[in-house]
Amino acid sequence: MLRLPGLIDPHVHLREPGAIHKEDFESGTAAALAGGFTAVLAMPNTDPPLTDALSLARAQAAARSKARCDYGLYLGGAEDNAPQVAGLAPSACGLKLYLDQTYGPLRLVETTAVWAHLRAWPKDRPLAAHAGGRSLAMVLLLAALEGRSVHVCHVSRREEILLIRAAKEKGLPVTCEVTPHHLFLTQADVPLLGSGRAEVRPRLATEQDRQALWENLKVVDCIATDHAPHTLAEKDGPQPPPGFPGLETALALMLTAVAEGRLSQEAMLRLMHSGPRCIFGLPEQEETWLEVDPDVQWEVRGEALQTRCRWSPFEGMRLRGRVRRVTLRGRLAFEDGEVLAPPGFGRDLSPAAREQRGGEGERGPT
Amino acid sequence: MLRLPGLIDPHVHLREPGAIHKEDFESGTAAALAGGFTAVLAMPNTDPPLTDALSLARAQAAARSKARCDYGLYLGGAEDNAPQVAGLAPSACGLKLYLDQTYGPLRLVETTAVWAHLRAWPKDRPLAAHAGGRSLAMVLLLAALEGRSVHVCHVSRREEILLIRAAKEKGLPVTCEVTPHHLFLTQADVPLLGSGRAEVRPRLATEQDRQALWENLKVVDCIATDHAPHTLAEKDGPQPPPGFPGLETALALMLTAVAEGRLSQEAMLRLMHSGPRCIFGLPEQEETWLEVDPDVQWEVRGEALQTRCRWSPFEGMRLRGRVRRVTLRGRLAFEDGEVLAPPGFGRDLSPAAREQRGGEGERGPT
Repeated sequence: MLRLPGLIDPHVHLREPGAIHKEDFESGTAAALAGGFTAVLAMPNTDPPLTDALSLARAQAAARSKARCDYGLYLGGAEDNAPQVAGLAPSACGLKLYLDQTYGPLRLVETTAVWAHLRAWPKDRPLAAHAGGRSLAMVLLLAALEGRSVHVCHVSRREEILLIRAAKEKGLPVTCEVTPHHLFLTQADVPLLGSGRAEVRPRLATEQDRQALWENLKVVDCIATDHAPHTLAEKDGPQPPPGFPGLETALALMLTAVAEGRLSQEAMLRLMHSGPRCIFGLPEQEETWLEVDPDVQWEVRGEALQTRCRWSPFEGMRLRGRVRRVTLRGRLAFEDGEVLAPPGFGRDLSPAAREQRGGEGERGPT
Repeated sequence: MLRLPGLIDPHVHLREPGAIHKEDFESGTAAALAGGFTAVLAMPNTDPPLTDALSLARAQAAARSKARCDYGLYLGGAEDNAPQVAGLAPSACGLKLYLDQTYGPLRLVETTAVWAHLRAWPKDRPLAAHAGGRSLAMVLLLAALEGRSVHVCHVSRREEILLIRAAKEKGLPVTCEVTPHHLFLTQADVPLLGSGRAEVRPRLATEQDRQALWENLKVVDCIATDHAPHTLAEKDGPQPPPGFPGLETALALMLTAVAEGRLSQEAMLRLMHSGPRCIFGLPEQEETWLEVDPDVQWEVRGEALQTRCRWSPFEGMRLRGRVRRVTLRGRLAFEDGEVLAPPGFGRDLSPAAREQRGGEGERGPT
């Protein structure tokens, strides 16, 4: 049995408030624990989006009573809320800026709006951007001009990872994540998945893009699932929304790659634990570990998953390695397919929430 | 009578080869002299575009026999010609990259294609980009990563001039130009002009954008006309192409602004002579000057212009200041409405052409 630290997923969509038929804090954090994640950072493109004190407070209340694992909540940048969200920074795990079109209403069009957020958001708090192509270049340039860091979400294309590599080589303070689905699937899988189920942003890319991600894994700072559940009825309907569930397959996909010699176990833990912990300044989760059987093979079946949407783009794939037990802060939270941590056990990892609880744990490596 | 140095326009479309019913090297350089320009740099989005040795050689031959004032020819960046055009750099005044959609077939979509040009094109030769919004950020970032200069064409919006200002303040080697039409016209003029005639790229912007250009004139390195003639039949037709003629109105518009106290005569000469000369490394044109009556008022009438398209977006405007005489390299080239320099008098200002002529003039202030 392999003992690993609790994994951290810096990019999940838990759909609460507004779309809890897809997922909520309870089912989403159950899926997290089943997948070996003891902390998840939840995106703000909910309904309503988390763009002000009231919407944040409501999501905090829901998460506090329902989350089974630890979590952070992102605030969302709108065209006109830069000073307001900056004032709420201590209560969030970071600010998310949507520079390209994706699911939900949050999107920044004007350069000046993006710039205003990069200026206003505290330099010592994480700022994450959904930004491909020219938008990626824009956020990197603005970050350089403002002398602040930026974290690039779900890098999917060769030209993007090469640009980030060059920016890092020049000393720009940029970090990035890639998703398992962009590491394991391509456009060639769209016919097998079906066009509706294959809808995801960024889109599945070319084999050349996929290879470039693997070849530049040293440039990548985190694996993020971008867990984005929608029901099968929605995915198979006339207007399929973009997004895949991913929390319960990520570790096994990466362990399979480790078994195949595509990356080391150390690299995997950098990408799924220490990398995200460092970038997002998260505290150590004391007495927290996973027990994983690295050799067991299993077949992905959507109906067996904890996520409310109960399907997977990796359906039918045989993977290697599975979580047997998760211990979170001294408590057995998951064992052999059963989630044991109750709703409300999860803790908000934001600086303000930690302060309120009396400053448990250290400050984290920011 | 005011004596001024010969003006330099770093951005004109002379439509040869491929659309000489709109303009050619003869009519376009006649318009230049009538407007006080003794050197013009011609854009490569002709038909065919200037993207290789053969297309360049043909345009050189046409210009050599027909141009009445001095000139340079830009090469155009295509998705796949970076090494080829770099090899032709000494024969061009610069490389033009189209990062956004405009008139003609040249457009770069992939980041990697733009990047390849910024890498391959010699660092000591000018590289100009049509790039607004996110594309502007992209070319600034890539230039910073490659440690090379970039010249931004026809800046038209507030967010763009502010981005360039910030980049300059950080020491990035960026220069830029603005057009008279973006300094003097806005979206509010579209109904007066008519929607077809008002078509131009970048589009006429808002009054706020226009004001931002004036307020940041110190950030601007050149006035460029972006002289882009189309016939009135085309502009008033069902698919009006974008572009305005501008060579014969630019100086009077700027002299009018000088008379109104909006900028100094020194600033005007920086923008229309020393700025473009410095950026494009052009030689001094010896024994070359304009005699200008700064007080005469005149009304713009398209039918009185030298440009073949014989219309102006400034039709009917009363302007102050007019060119009486142009002396180019010791020869009276224009006098009181009459172009006296014959076709073939103009010289190619590229390093290779100057070398071939025996290295006349100094190397220029690059």
